[in-house]
Amino acid sequence: MAGSTFGTIFRITTWGESHGKALGVVIDGCPAGLELAESDIQRYLDRRKPGASSIATQRREADQVEILSGVFEGRTTGTPISLLVRNTSQNSGDYSEIASYYRPGHADYTYDQKYGFRDYRGGGRSSGRETIGRVAAGAVACRVLACLGINLCAYTRSIGPIEADMEHFDRDMILKVPTAMPDAKADAAAVKYLEEAKENLDSVGGCMECIIEGLPAGLGDPVFEKLDANLAKAVMSIGAVKAVEIGDGHQVSGRLGSENNDAFLIKDGKTGKATNHAGGILGGISDGDAILIRAHVKPTPSIFRSQRTVNRAGEEITARIKGRHDPVIVPRAVVVMESMAAMTVLDALLLNMSARMDSVADFYKTKR
Amino acid sequence: MAGSTFGTIFRITTWGESHGKALGVVIDGCPAGLELAESDIQRYLDRRKPGASSIATQRREADQVEILSGVFEGRTTGTPISLLVRNTSQNSGDYSEIASYYRPGHADYTYDQKYGFRDYRGGGRSSGRETIGRVAAGAVACRVLACLGINLCAYTRSIGPIEADMEHFDRDMILKVPTAMPDAKADAAAVKYLEEAKENLDSVGGCMECIIEGLPAGLGDPVFEKLDANLAKAVMSIGAVKAVEIGDGHQVSGRLGSENNDAFLIKDGKTGKATNHAGGILGGISDGDAILIRAHVKPTPSIFRSQRTVNRAGEEITARIKGRHDPVIVPRAVVVMESMAAMTVLDALLLNMSARMDSVADFYKTKR
Amino acid sequence: MAGSTFGTIFRITTWGESHGKALGVVIDGCPAGLELAESDIQRYLDRRKPGASSIATQRREADQVEILSGVFEGRTTGTPISLLVRNTSQNSGDYSEIASYYRPGHADYTYDQKYGFRDYRGGGRSSGRETIGRVAAGAVACRVLACLGINLCAYTRSIGPIEADMEHFDRDMILKVPTAMPDAKADAAAVKYLEEAKENLDSVGGCMECIIEGLPAGLGDPVFEKLDANLAKAVMSIGAVKAVEIGDGHQVSGRLGSENNDAFLIKDGKTGKATNHAGGILGGISDGDAILIRAHVKPTPSIFRSQRTVNRAGEEITARIKGRHDPVIVPRAVVVMESMAAMTVLDALLLNMSARMDSVADFYKTKR
Amino acid sequence: MAGSTFGTIFRITTWGESHGKALGVVIDGCPAGLELAESDIQRYLDRRKPGASSIATQRREADQVEILSGVFEGRTTGTPISLLVRNTSQNSGDYSEIASYYRPGHADYTYDQKYGFRDYRGGGRSSGRETIGRVAAGAVACRVLACLGINLCAYTRSIGPIEADMEHFDRDMILKVPTAMPDAKADAAAVKYLEEAKENLDSVGGCMECIIEGLPAGLGDPVFEKLDANLAKAVMSIGAVKAVEIGDGHQVSGRLGSENNDAFLIKDGKTGKATNHAGGILGGISDGDAILIRAHVKPTPSIFRSQRTVNRAGEEITARIKGRHDPVIVPRAVVVMESMAAMTVLDALLLNMSARMDSVADFYKTKR
Repeated sequence: MAGSTFGTIFRITTWGESHGKALGVVIDGCPAGLELAESDIQRYLDRRKPGASSIATQRREADQVEILSGVFEGRTTGTPISLLVRNTSQNSGDYSEIASYYRPGHADYTYDQKYGFRDYRGGGRSSGRETIGRVAAGAVACRVLACLGINLCAYTRSIGPIEADMEHFDRDMILKVPTAMPDAKADAAAVKYLEEAKENLDSVGGCMECIIEGLPAGLGDPVFEKLDANLAKAVMSIGAVKAVEIGDGHQVSGRLGSENNDAFLIKDGKTGKATNHAGGILGGISDGDAILIRAHVKPTPSIFRSQRTVNRAGEEITARIKGRHDPVIVPRAVVVMESMAAMTVLDALLLNMSARMDSVADFYKTKR
Repeated sequence: MAGSTFGTIFRITTWGESHGKALGVVIDGCPAGLELAESDIQRYLDRRKPGASSIATQRREADQVEILSGVFEGRTTGTPISLLVRNTSQNSGDYSEIASYYRPGHADYTYDQKYGFRDYRGGGRSSGRETIGRVAAGAVACRVLACLGINLCAYTRSIGPIEADMEHFDRDMILKVPTAMPDAKADAAAVKYLEEAKENLDSVGGCMECIIEGLPAGLGDPVFEKLDANLAKAVMSIGAVKAVEIGDGHQVSGRLGSENNDAFLIKDGKTGKATNHAGGILGGISDGDAILIRAHVKPTPSIFRSQRTVNRAGEEITARIKGRHDPVIVPRAVVVMESMAAMTVLDALLLNMSARMDSVADFYKTKR
Repeated sequence: MAGSTFGTIFRITTWGESHGKALGVVIDGCPAGLELAESDIQRYLDRRKPGASSIATQRREADQVEILSGVFEGRTTGTPISLLVRNTSQNSGDYSEIASYYRPGHADYTYDQKYGFRDYRGGGRSSGRETIGRVAAGAVACRVLACLGINLCAYTRSIGPIEADMEHFDRDMILKVPTAMPDAKADAAAVKYLEEAKENLDSVGGCMECIIEGLPAGLGDPVFEKLDANLAKAVMSIGAVKAVEIGDGHQVSGRLGSENNDAFLIKDGKTGKATNHAGGILGGISDGDAILIRAHVKPTPSIFRSQRTVNRAGEEITARIKGRHDPVIVPRAVVVMESMAAMTVLDALLLNMSARMDSVADFYKTKR
Repeated sequence: MAGSTFGTIFRITTWGESHGKALGVVIDGCPAGLELAESDIQRYLDRRKPGASSIATQRREADQVEILSGVFEGRTTGTPISLLVRNTSQNSGDYSEIASYYRPGHADYTYDQKYGFRDYRGGGRSSGRETIGRVAAGAVACRVLACLGINLCAYTRSIGPIEADMEHFDRDMILKVPTAMPDAKADAAAVKYLEEAKENLDSVGGCMECIIEGLPAGLGDPVFEKLDANLAKAVMSIGAVKAVEIGDGHQVSGRLGSENNDAFLIKDGKTGKATNHAGGILGGISDGDAILIRAHVKPTPSIFRSQRTVNRAGEEITARIKGRHDPVIVPRAVVVMESMAAMTVLDALLLNMSARMDSVADFYKTKR
């Protein structure tokens, strides 16, 4: 439980630091027989890379993935899939200075307190590059889910005060615009806002959402392993996320029951809901409706202004961070959120297969 | 992973249904040698009970706890502590009707989808009575933490539109007033608001907060087992919670980095922070400041108005729920939140003891 | 991982001490819809009880089981099944003396070293009564397996030098004779041998076996979660077991490959094996043949002779244990072995359902 | 739980196939601050390599390890340590034939039954090369233990009928002779025996032992997580092991209690035992004496004689295996056993730190 493993049946273990030799992930428990190529994974990693736009970091990494095990003749074998991405553009020199002091909003101080020392190059393990393993594994989870007719879509809901217009949601925009917003107009406004912040040596927060469609009812477990509890953990574990909401989220605390309850009705011959305030989960178990998750992400803590802080010697100092950073985290975190959500629902889906005696009996009837 | 176990070292397993014979919890991994009596646990269970006020359910249970194992001569032995609470006031008759249809906002439909049938009496396992096991175990966790100088305080932040005035935070009020608000004036307003809602056959949402003080820096793990990720899961696993925030929570998405970063400084000879937007956690690891968690709770889904819904035969119907329910969940959920938070930080604290080679060597030096 | 939980999907947590108020188990993850009554469990607990014979302890406990949760209208609901057995015949007085010294062959010294103190009454948690929880849960696992056509049979293979004649294996004898041997002649000889040992104030070791029939091929996982590895842990976790063997076990180390390999052949139109030296497991995965496990159990450490030992003050003393004990452990441990084996294969069976993409796709095809 | 992860706090995940690109392991939870270099690990991997002797396979692999993460400035950082070994001498051509049939004694049939197809090249994941990850991680565990004064020593006890003379145990021999026996005379006899078997196109079984010295009393947990139960699982999970014994092992079933009990006495001012039949474990918890584990290993299933078997089409055939194999598994498995035992006791040791309230209080006293 040292922190780098996620999931029960579809279980991943990530490793690697910002300025080490490489980063990677081992996926254990992926069902056997799934068609899988490096290009399937590369597509997701490319979404995680900084674009060429004005609002992205200048660090340029190829982030080329290599499948080292677990795939034979183009299909998964059921044994661990090891994925490797070499670091190629480390400028460790940039970071030598921060060895001596604690950057505000970063994990420098807390790592030192926990471990007694730390890999200070680019944040080491606490760097955003840690998410490479999550996204590589998430790509595989998404592929399994797609085979089952389940699709995920994550996007930027807002950047600073600029919010996407959900009435004119345009899914195609998400992969095209630098902000990953589903709305070209909001994207343009957000880019302008970010450029100003950058000029002011500042950074900006934002909000991202993920919708999961096609999930059958009945996934998730009662009490501690509720589907929403696991989604909350999955998404809150992404660096810089400070709040997670399901469905209507924080708004429910101001509501009346008569406003917030979703009436059941019959839709296309099946039980459905008139509204979806619940975000597709009731009592911790999926209800067959779309799942909606929202995450609030703090502004990039690395800003280029002078900041008050403390050094390892315990002295108050004023410091100015150098290096290469995005002025906003959200656009590149969107695919990380999608990955974490995909792995969470896939795990629930695989665990759910043994929930009923009749399913178990059906499954083994044919094996004897 | 069927859902009823929580924690890695301090690990609990809860069981029981609203209208079964009893409910309980088994605590495994509690350190040996802790002084523990039934009264220590009863005190927490009593906070969970409905008060005598106008805003509480009419179901009256003694909820008397019995320690069945794991305590010898007044101290924990290191082996499992089994705690039992018998149900005494079940009126199963009240619920026979809901066997046939799905109450909006409840888990009836999703349990049926998952398991093929369900214990419909009072919601069975999805009832709020399920939290008895959480609170009984939370009382033990709080006792361990108190011995280490760590204290938790959870309270109602808002009910519907009525918010506590945090400038005049009065900790003593929390256990005295029916709403568990730290502010007598807000309490009075909220009670009035709730009585109106009740009269309208409606229910109300609310927001609760938990502050953890005295926690050392260095707790929590990187990547997936971040302290905030585990707190989010712990709190989101409480029925009816739809959003969880750490520190400034959802507000960070609208901020600039220069506003949101907490400057480090020297306080009482130790590294501290000028502000605490982060809520006491940086990079998933505690920074020594107070931890702040917030949860938004939906209105009680059981309302006494007629509601549209669907029955097990797949027909649309109009139904009116009977039974005994609180018009708001938050006041009784506050101690549940405190319990879940306590168990989460205690587990992090126990896991953290083996994080460094020098600590391990120190520990075993004396054993040889 | 404090030691009282077993299994991943079918997961049990046991609790209770020899002279506490009660003992019990919580079963989480049992598939929903299984017909289950207290009498199904009682039958297994009764096999665990000492008989009326000359070779059994004089402690007489009713060991009456009560189902407290998880069963509704005669069927499991998928939520935790809590089972309780009250202690009724504790004579704690018998044990007060052993508070002060360490009984040879018992866990008194090691518990004191680990926890700093211990519940000395009858061995506390390290007593053989701890197995009540295992057997109660094992009864449920056996019931699930029986529905799938899988049957287990455990018995005494030898007591001291007296071995059952496997050529004349008589399954009916096992439940009838005091030694649980499948052979009436060996039983008679063993009883005589035990009576002599008892007269000499001594105790006797023995060997037990368990055969699992009807298990499909393909269960178990590669590398660390091999089916035989999990069976070895399950059986070695039973107090007093000092060796575990699979198939031909320790004999294989003296063999040639040409003797030990089992040739594959076609039996009843399916792939089978000409011999079963492997004991039904190849590469950690079941091969469809009968599983054979063997366990060697040490003599009851409580003997009524004077023994050299050490007291809590660190002085060498000579002590004579009082109390009520069996002169041999095996006959009552046989049902414990069956229970542990049943839970292990059931867990493998439930985990295996998600091993292949085509199975997962088939399962969810019908859910959409 | 798909099988490739081992341990709770010191937790490893291995991956890789015999003829894939590479094999490796991720170690999570290694305490921070341990000095670690590639050469520390290489030394253990070299013990696993076939020697230049007449009794070893002809496959020659450099098995050069690369540390990809988790070590900074020569010390572990507390974050995951990723270790990589590239395959360089794969002759996949050798194995193309076995794609079509099931080798007796191998996992070909069971993998096909579980996963529907398999990587047939050299056994894929079920190959002995899988143990590279175990040994690389075991080297790190041994290094942590050595810092605490705990040492492990594994060796070959017997090969076929040739047994080492334990009266003349010579530890230095183990790393020098091809059989890893602690006795030069037995080694010579065993080499001769193996050469004969090889000439007869046959293979041979053997027995290995591991002694752990310096372990403090109090490690391991009651009931399911007994130290011996976890050691049994760890060692039984090594391919080809069919029996595991602790202390006097299978001999105890033939003994009297008066023979088998170890009397406690005072040794060097501390509680010790007059004998060690128990093998250093009482009630699942270490007693401070040396731990002794024994494992029986079947003959290499790959023999060069014709064997009866079945092909994937379900026809009985006669087949002759080609390829490169050792005529005995034990000498190269000895370091694997040592590795598995080291990781098991290290995990118990790290978990044990939080067993007592006074230890927890002492630890955190200094942190505030």
